[in-house]
Amino acid sequence: MHNIAIYDTTLRDGSQSEEIHLSTADKIRIACKLDDLGIGYIEGGWPGSNPTDMSFFKEIKNYELKTSKVAAFGSTHLANSSPETDKNLQSLIAARTEVITIFGKTWDIHVQEALRTTLDRNLEIIHNSLAFLRPQVAELFFDAEHFFDGFKANREFAMACLDRAVQAGADSIILCDTNGGTLPHEVGDIVAQVRKAFPHTVLGIHAHNDGELAVANSLQAVQNGVRHIQGTINGYGERCGNANLCSIIPNLEIKMDIPCLPQGCMAKLTNVSHVVSEIANVRSFHRQPFVGKSAFAHKGGVHVSAVQKNPKTYEHIPPALVGNKQRILLSDLAGQSNILFKAKRYGFDLDKNDPFVLELLSELKHRENRGYEFSAAEASFELLLNRVMGRSRDYFKIIAFRVFDTQRSEDDDPFTEATVMVKVGGMVEHTAATGMGPVNALDNALRKALQRFYPNIATMHLVDFKVRVLWDLKNDDGQFAGTASQVRVLIESRDQHTQWVTVGVHYNILEASRQALEDSINYKLFKDDQAKLTRALRDRDQ
Amino acid sequence: MHNIAIYDTTLRDGSQSEEIHLSTADKIRIACKLDDLGIGYIEGGWPGSNPTDMSFFKEIKNYELKTSKVAAFGSTHLANSSPETDKNLQSLIAARTEVITIFGKTWDIHVQEALRTTLDRNLEIIHNSLAFLRPQVAELFFDAEHFFDGFKANREFAMACLDRAVQAGADSIILCDTNGGTLPHEVGDIVAQVRKAFPHTVLGIHAHNDGELAVANSLQAVQNGVRHIQGTINGYGERCGNANLCSIIPNLEIKMDIPCLPQGCMAKLTNVSHVVSEIANVRSFHRQPFVGKSAFAHKGGVHVSAVQKNPKTYEHIPPALVGNKQRILLSDLAGQSNILFKAKRYGFDLDKNDPFVLELLSELKHRENRGYEFSAAEASFELLLNRVMGRSRDYFKIIAFRVFDTQRSEDDDPFTEATVMVKVGGMVEHTAATGMGPVNALDNALRKALQRFYPNIATMHLVDFKVRVLWDLKNDDGQFAGTASQVRVLIESRDQHTQWVTVGVHYNILEASRQALEDSINYKLFKDDQAKLTRALRDRDQ
Repeated sequence: MHNIAIYDTTLRDGSQSEEIHLSTADKIRIACKLDDLGIGYIEGGWPGSNPTDMSFFKEIKNYELKTSKVAAFGSTHLANSSPETDKNLQSLIAARTEVITIFGKTWDIHVQEALRTTLDRNLEIIHNSLAFLRPQVAELFFDAEHFFDGFKANREFAMACLDRAVQAGADSIILCDTNGGTLPHEVGDIVAQVRKAFPHTVLGIHAHNDGELAVANSLQAVQNGVRHIQGTINGYGERCGNANLCSIIPNLEIKMDIPCLPQGCMAKLTNVSHVVSEIANVRSFHRQPFVGKSAFAHKGGVHVSAVQKNPKTYEHIPPALVGNKQRILLSDLAGQSNILFKAKRYGFDLDKNDPFVLELLSELKHRENRGYEFSAAEASFELLLNRVMGRSRDYFKIIAFRVFDTQRSEDDDPFTEATVMVKVGGMVEHTAATGMGPVNALDNALRKALQRFYPNIATMHLVDFKVRVLWDLKNDDGQFAGTASQVRVLIESRDQHTQWVTVGVHYNILEASRQALEDSINYKLFKDDQAKLTRALRDRDQ
Repeated sequence: MHNIAIYDTTLRDGSQSEEIHLSTADKIRIACKLDDLGIGYIEGGWPGSNPTDMSFFKEIKNYELKTSKVAAFGSTHLANSSPETDKNLQSLIAARTEVITIFGKTWDIHVQEALRTTLDRNLEIIHNSLAFLRPQVAELFFDAEHFFDGFKANREFAMACLDRAVQAGADSIILCDTNGGTLPHEVGDIVAQVRKAFPHTVLGIHAHNDGELAVANSLQAVQNGVRHIQGTINGYGERCGNANLCSIIPNLEIKMDIPCLPQGCMAKLTNVSHVVSEIANVRSFHRQPFVGKSAFAHKGGVHVSAVQKNPKTYEHIPPALVGNKQRILLSDLAGQSNILFKAKRYGFDLDKNDPFVLELLSELKHRENRGYEFSAAEASFELLLNRVMGRSRDYFKIIAFRVFDTQRSEDDDPFTEATVMVKVGGMVEHTAATGMGPVNALDNALRKALQRFYPNIATMHLVDFKVRVLWDLKNDDGQFAGTASQVRVLIESRDQHTQWVTVGVHYNILEASRQALEDSINYKLFKDDQAKLTRALRDRDQ
């Protein structure tokens, strides 16, 4: 069987999800993650529809993507305009991507009731739009909106729409189940008929999950000859979401033996799912197949003992294939080999019986139980590892801090002041600063206190600050705790060389921020020291 | 096509979900809901495995169920015992249910590695267990555990297991995809073969969602002759969950025209889904097909105008069929027609030239540009609308507040105190409170100040608190602002009747929280007043 092209639309259709609002910076980070995963195509947005999408296409040109091609999305030209004068088509060209995906109507009631034009005019619009774009772009795709509903309502017209797109030079024709209500056997029948009518065209599928069937519909389409699949990470998308690539990819690769990612990349899937949910600030869904926290978690005593004798007894695949892991609830035995693997990447070749490894493990377990999420905050992990192994030190310690936040009258801006007492080696610095809000004031005071000891911290700054309430950590009485819950703060920082994320957890958001800020600055100082050491050793050896 | 029997196992397999712990009282409430929905069979638990399950079977006898039969679940007898002496079988009989469901091994590696017995002994165990129970119970079902994996590994043995169960008098044979990894086309093939071999036996399907295919697998089984479906409400269950009855039922009834519930009952589905998630204390999944909050929510401007012309354009079914409703989300893409549509739902029949509409629109635009997200915080929108239209008032105003957060030494817990000065009509209240972190302290102080004026706020509490940094709103110099950026806070609150979300935006997280808290309490008071007014008008008219 041929390879399948995976076309990700998390940044476009996925961001239509009710709870998701992505900035340009968010989109860039997600695109880099998708590229690293080895996704074939990344649909970046609809440049004609809003300024955020246009700025993404500008910005992404500064990045050298390894595997992904970037696609811009837009509609066929308006019924009362022509391709040459249509603003939407002009914006698509202005986005200067390798790929353009044009969607057009193929369901007669949509043409008549939503576009309010004739079926013949719609065929013309499809043809003219694609023919106009054809010379402007390396690859041109046609999304046949509502194709399955259209085929059922008026087969002849729906097929004529595809025919015009093919005539106009579309490289692939994507059959869309826009309303998400088509059943797998219908998808199979209809795809097979289209396959027969267009034997030389690459066909694609774009499924929505309104019937909880988007993954099945995508697989069914592949079995009937489709070679291009559109979907999103974690199934994000409007209403019930799009087809979930995190399930489609492993089903194809592991179960159906159809490659879709470069060799070895599928093991990154769980991490990508997780990081995208962090960036989108959407709580991850524990029961999510393949990549969810509970996907390989075993609770029942019978299951646990069977699974320990032979994992195949209650696991449909080895979790490591998708970068996930088995969790034995109540008595968690996992973890150690992971830590050794990670440590190796940071230059420590450790043995599992090393007493320092045991110390590290118990510290990590302790923190993870309290809600620290090291997979999203590798800098905090790297610091901890290096401290335990004696390759780093505490560059400073916050002895005490105080934040004072006040608002006098409704129209006044609030006034915030932080004081901080910091110990650096044998010296103590005590200072104060104001700021825009309590976290910023604390950050300012801390920098002010440290600057004379460590002038290099002037080159670092914060680029992201995320807060999440940890509902999993319930009160002792098992109730959700509202504003009194545990809070996880992730802080992303950057200097002229690199970018790093640190974590803090506490019921008090300021204390959680303090932990993450402290780690962030310590990490910067540690990295600068490491670089100095590397240079010194190199110079000595020359 | 014949009717399908729906067999719910939320109380047994569903409660194996990592996050679910049900008391006997919880189980009784869920069972009554399922009965009211018209579910055919309710699997109440495994009486041999734990005391909660046994007490459920006792208690449920005090309720007269209208449509549901109660089933007790258990395993075949142990390899080293006999039916007469097996404790598990005795407990099943002691539960005195109309239905008993017995599960047995059908996968050879399970028999050899988990049971550690021979294939022949396993056949005997199945036969003896079922034959022993047969005279004790009205209906007897056999769950063929791991049937699909078993069939693929050793077809002859797997079929022999079914044959023994049929010989011993099982009324239905349920084919279980216990590991949840089987693909729909495999399910179709295998069910068809079993159907042929056992033409006179009722066949069932029990699917798990590890491949995100449980719903598709269940439908595929029905198309190949299955007449009994096992699943859970909301797809709860261990690992990735069981087949989701909230999706299977409407797919069968609406799409495939196969009745599974009594006439008119399907419209209760959304409510049942919601109530079960409340009882199980699991946050509901907004993107859940058919019954989720977002399942019929429309965000994009194009979709909204089309869906208003003809709902079929972007809705696969009329939401009322499953008791759900269409939601038009507010968003900057949408504009005036959206606002008028929304206002209508809140009882305002407005004209687009109404000067108050213009005021409302400009206020909304202004706030959305500053980062307010009303599509996620409808209560804030409803308040604003009612204020502009003169149907609400400010129940209170915060004149001043102060938050004082301090940490003395690294090991101390931080101490947080808030003071607040509140104006209620012509009176001023000034008070202070401590809290777990600054937002909680502010919340506590505010409630304390208001309680004597509005005792009904005691019935409301916070259920979620979300924070997002708005990177799109850059500093004046176009730079990302780190901890000095604008912050959006969403607060979800609830009382005994309903749940609502409010929003606040500011560079200071406390000020943003203050806004959202103020809206949240005002909304509660506004709603209570509205309810009072409605009652008064009704009483006057009678």
